Amino acid sequence: MAIILPMKVSELGEFGLIELLSEVVPQGSREHRILAGIGDDAAAWRSDDSVVLATIDALVEGVHFAVGSPWWELGWKAVAVNLSDIAAMGGIPRYALVALSLPGDTEADSVVQLYRGMAELGNQFDVAVVGGNITSAPVTTITMTVIGQGQNEGILTRSKAVTGDLVAVTGYLGSAAAGLKMLTRGLRFAPETADFLRKAHLQPQPRVAQGQLLVKCGVRAAIDISDGLMADLGHLCKASRVGATIAVEQVPIHPLMRTAFPEDSLDFALTGGEDYELLFTADRQTVNGAKAQIEASAIGDDCPVTIVGEVTEGEGVSLLAKDGRPFHVARGGWDHFKKGG
Amino acid sequence: MAIILPMKVSELGEFGLIELLSEVVPQGSREHRILAGIGDDAAAWRSDDSVVLATIDALVEGVHFAVGSPWWELGWKAVAVNLSDIAAMGGIPRYALVALSLPGDTEADSVVQLYRGMAELGNQFDVAVVGGNITSAPVTTITMTVIGQGQNEGILTRSKAVTGDLVAVTGYLGSAAAGLKMLTRGLRFAPETADFLRKAHLQPQPRVAQGQLLVKCGVRAAIDISDGLMADLGHLCKASRVGATIAVEQVPIHPLMRTAFPEDSLDFALTGGEDYELLFTADRQTVNGAKAQIEASAIGDDCPVTIVGEVTEGEGVSLLAKDGRPFHVARGGWDHFKKGG
Repeated sequence: MAIILPMKVSELGEFGLIELLSEVVPQGSREHRILAGIGDDAAAWRSDDSVVLATIDALVEGVHFAVGSPWWELGWKAVAVNLSDIAAMGGIPRYALVALSLPGDTEADSVVQLYRGMAELGNQFDVAVVGGNITSAPVTTITMTVIGQGQNEGILTRSKAVTGDLVAVTGYLGSAAAGLKMLTRGLRFAPETADFLRKAHLQPQPRVAQGQLLVKCGVRAAIDISDGLMADLGHLCKASRVGATIAVEQVPIHPLMRTAFPEDSLDFALTGGEDYELLFTADRQTVNGAKAQIEASAIGDDCPVTIVGEVTEGEGVSLLAKDGRPFHVARGGWDHFKKGG
Repeated sequence: MAIILPMKVSELGEFGLIELLSEVVPQGSREHRILAGIGDDAAAWRSDDSVVLATIDALVEGVHFAVGSPWWELGWKAVAVNLSDIAAMGGIPRYALVALSLPGDTEADSVVQLYRGMAELGNQFDVAVVGGNITSAPVTTITMTVIGQGQNEGILTRSKAVTGDLVAVTGYLGSAAAGLKMLTRGLRFAPETADFLRKAHLQPQPRVAQGQLLVKCGVRAAIDISDGLMADLGHLCKASRVGATIAVEQVPIHPLMRTAFPEDSLDFALTGGEDYELLFTADRQTVNGAKAQIEASAIGDDCPVTIVGEVTEGEGVSLLAKDGRPFHVARGGWDHFKKGG
């Protein structure tokens, strides 16, 4: 092909670019036995006796975090976003590699704090950092690869949703976006609220154990919510060639967040990114079984499972108000190049 | 430990920082069966029936490449530097993941060219790009992870050199540094020379097949030459707790490079980085066997194997002149934060 593209990546958008590139990248021969490739949360391929999962994610200063962000939390978050991708495949994370780009005048102690944050969450899930690369650069970028293993029962992918499935999510949505607003605007709340929102933004908890339980309960379609509920449900629908509805009044919003941001809370919950909760679909019985198991397990203490909608024929995500009529929302999800979706 | 480090990373240096961090990173439990971790070319661990290899490397605009560098060659190089790490372990590269950070005003066609360059070299070694991540950023950064497999015969590591081993290298050294000087200074040479030097810098050929042959021939200690002969031999010596000598007149310099840069050629060959040749050590018989096999194979057409020195007791790398007396060199290798080594 000799297609000429007189277009900036900002016009094409992140997802348009990914679609375009997926036609150019080397696919490898049949012996690669690829189960999930570009366009899923993590790559998956069949090894001798098991399925290997691998994912890569970058945190860029000025894009994903502000200059002056606490280093320990950055380390935690770099691990969390990658573990969340493994969780969205229902897998077991095992090994990590880190590529760190830093200005030369960064304090050595800051980098140690960054790694301590990585270690805190990495040790929680027995993930070993086995390699890396450090280079100087004008802006700080933390890129991490996590390699893991699929469970014997199977993996979760974005492409397995079918019409009639229920749509469910773990945890509460929008808290990370609310935390970001609190921090960037310097808003003040009661200590319990401030602590909850700060942690939601800076220390997201990847749903690794929940993802594994989903697979064991028979769920096969999932995605992690990194770009916002509507955007990520949209990605899952596109990969599965289906549509979906969301009943807006069912979307789980934490009471502390709702009280702190009564005006914004629904917008945050529908379109705010970086919650790193899991969204999954399955038939009613499977969803209820998974809900019961996750909520009954120790890991479910602060992790309810909520049914928020339904998979439909067609395409795209529609919002339904309490009376079943269409509901309109101002913003789309998060696209790294386009503004305002 | 509550050590406070009132130090910039530029004072500590890339390798000092890596050493410091290797004590902080999560190590994982015993079941990770790690064979090579931080401080080797790639990480290696035992899987069910085989050894998994994984490496990560970043190319940063303004650090590893100039603004306006050709995109196709950047894609090639991003793959090459990672395949070189797998080659230095004697392994088989299989899967790649790419994290791309780009300014929004990058032309979409440039990114397609980048991926075409990746595909050209990736397809040559049957490497499949199975995943990635694209994000906006103030400077372009291409970070790639390559995952591969060790051969049944074993892997190459930096820590297996023993006193009495000979030190050998594949190919010619210093050509990439000479190519960089030609391009940055706008120097003009005869077409054959200009083409050779340009390719040496922009399109390095990872020695994947040669690394695999080394393992089959019984070699166990190797490193790829990315920071320069002296620096990388130094890394290998440190990991193996030995010293080494280099007989400077034996260092292989391509005739085209020597003629183009008569004054700089030895300096380039000893300290110029980014050649991505392999350096290995073994007893004389093993080295000669490997040399014969690599030079006899089709892949050895432009890839001589040259004995350049010897592993000794003690530590550090010494240069010997033709008469066996110490030889002095002006510069050290390449450290991403320290200047002038």
